[in-house]
Amino acid sequence: MNRNKRIAVLAPVAWRTPPRQYGAWETVAGNVAEGMASRGWDVTLFATADSNTRGRLHAVVQRGYEEDSSVGPKVAEYLHISEAFEHADEFDLIHSHYDFMALAFSRLVKTPVLTTIHGFSSPQVLPAYLKYRDGNFVSISESDRHPDLNYLATVYNGIDLSLYPLAEQRAKDLVFLGRIHPDKGVHLAIEAARLCQHRLLIAGIIQDEGYFRREVEPHIDGKKVRYLGPVGIDGKNELFAQADALLHLNTIPERFGLVLAEANAAGVPVIAMDLGSCREVIADGKSGFLVQNVQEAAAAVCRINEIDRRQCREHVQSRFSIETMIDGYERVYDMILRARRQN
Amino acid sequence: MNRNKRIAVLAPVAWRTPPRQYGAWETVAGNVAEGMASRGWDVTLFATADSNTRGRLHAVVQRGYEEDSSVGPKVAEYLHISEAFEHADEFDLIHSHYDFMALAFSRLVKTPVLTTIHGFSSPQVLPAYLKYRDGNFVSISESDRHPDLNYLATVYNGIDLSLYPLAEQRAKDLVFLGRIHPDKGVHLAIEAARLCQHRLLIAGIIQDEGYFRREVEPHIDGKKVRYLGPVGIDGKNELFAQADALLHLNTIPERFGLVLAEANAAGVPVIAMDLGSCREVIADGKSGFLVQNVQEAAAAVCRINEIDRRQCREHVQSRFSIETMIDGYERVYDMILRARRQN
Repeated sequence: MNRNKRIAVLAPVAWRTPPRQYGAWETVAGNVAEGMASRGWDVTLFATADSNTRGRLHAVVQRGYEEDSSVGPKVAEYLHISEAFEHADEFDLIHSHYDFMALAFSRLVKTPVLTTIHGFSSPQVLPAYLKYRDGNFVSISESDRHPDLNYLATVYNGIDLSLYPLAEQRAKDLVFLGRIHPDKGVHLAIEAARLCQHRLLIAGIIQDEGYFRREVEPHIDGKKVRYLGPVGIDGKNELFAQADALLHLNTIPERFGLVLAEANAAGVPVIAMDLGSCREVIADGKSGFLVQNVQEAAAAVCRINEIDRRQCREHVQSRFSIETMIDGYERVYDMILRARRQN
Repeated sequence: MNRNKRIAVLAPVAWRTPPRQYGAWETVAGNVAEGMASRGWDVTLFATADSNTRGRLHAVVQRGYEEDSSVGPKVAEYLHISEAFEHADEFDLIHSHYDFMALAFSRLVKTPVLTTIHGFSSPQVLPAYLKYRDGNFVSISESDRHPDLNYLATVYNGIDLSLYPLAEQRAKDLVFLGRIHPDKGVHLAIEAARLCQHRLLIAGIIQDEGYFRREVEPHIDGKKVRYLGPVGIDGKNELFAQADALLHLNTIPERFGLVLAEANAAGVPVIAMDLGSCREVIADGKSGFLVQNVQEAAAAVCRINEIDRRQCREHVQSRFSIETMIDGYERVYDMILRARRQN
């Protein structure tokens, strides 16, 4: 493998890379850039100007448009993406984390483009992916794939395990961690906790105000159900240290589920709805339990002592570490670069 | 002049080209395509699939995203613009009416790109124009120019005079025609009409609901102030036939003001605020009056019989016809194509 090749990693510019708190796509793009650079690839990260990287930073957008209202999202996106493609000749590969938008530029340059699809945000975006179906795609789980696209591999997201130290001691509370949105099934977590009479700690940004007011807030009593607001990495670790299990009773197919891996990394077993990628991230009976409904979730809580917290962490270490992710992407880069040499 | 050259005209895809009702940018793009095709240029119009042109239609977006909620605006824009640029080699010139977004693709192709700036929608878009300042730009009025861009000319918008027959007879009502938005000064038109005790007919789409409810709706009594909703060309002509004058008391600088030319074409004098391009479109004392405030507007209504309705139409015929606009764009095309041959 020739690691001297020049790689452009195109991160979104909604948030800084790596993000201060939220920003899953920026997190992964940043981890890819750092991991590749540390293995000797010649990495240029296209991201906001306040981003950090051990590679080269190339920036035309000063700050993330979600962090600075003077930045126009549309202008920032067009300027940022086009800048990368105007420099395409300086790279052997462009690795885009920028959804379908970067695809629109991909046929105008000779440099091959790899797109990690971090999820299809709506059916409206499919026409764009289908036009460029012959491109090079990576899915972040086997379940989040469209049948008609040219996937080279699934590469699971990797997390930085050093950020989530093992909380060895079993604790008592149940934890929900994620966006407050019906997709994430906060109401189901509340119901499951009630059924098995455990306390539930809820943390995350409120993305759906109405849902919060109708389905979550009425249950918050400061005792059996507590809401802690959004939390950063320290807050997550405090929660993990108090957690007997993480409840993730999503109502739509999960695309990957970074938080499942984060909880497992800290040794916290996960009880997850068997929808989408959850069965790929959680080893059923080993790093948690996959369930079909709230009753099964409540029953799983009673069996949570069957799960070894060290084994949870080992599971993440072997499958969802940054190293494993970088191994996966190196294989994909190599496929593309070899195919290019043969042309 | 070599009119056999291949021209791509890139229209927006918010609306059909030509639009059914509202859609000023699509109207102008359509008029350019038709005018150029009728003079023998080899014209391809990039627009929605339901558009009409005597040139070649190239479409990947089925319907305007403002007309069909199943069309995602962002996806439609990226697919539409990139499609044109992926075919750049087939054209000698790309004439973009697509704001800064098309500029983002312009350096990735060899074909020269001409951009008509139909107005700077907000200060947030300026960084994009400034990056591509050395491009080829046309302004639609002398007043709507940024000092740092490479303008080749001002080409005033041209209207199809056959759509607006002369309404020779003086009528009694005052008319407001345009978007219901504070920028357009509907509230000032209401005040001016009240001051001179004329009836005011208001027509146009409601773009700012709150403004309509606060500043317009309370005055609508079905007698002195009437609101007719949005109108197409027939509706406009009916209004012009009832109009003693058009009141256009804009509160921010006008970029061009198509409706001023349309009213004049129909023989209707225009009373316009002296802001932005209004003094370029209206010949003060000849096709209407330029005013500084509501009191002057009301006073101008009393003097409206000084304006000759035939002269209003002649004014438009000589300066704002499609023929005049096409003459202007042919000169610009020729400049670009000659410069290209010399390189």
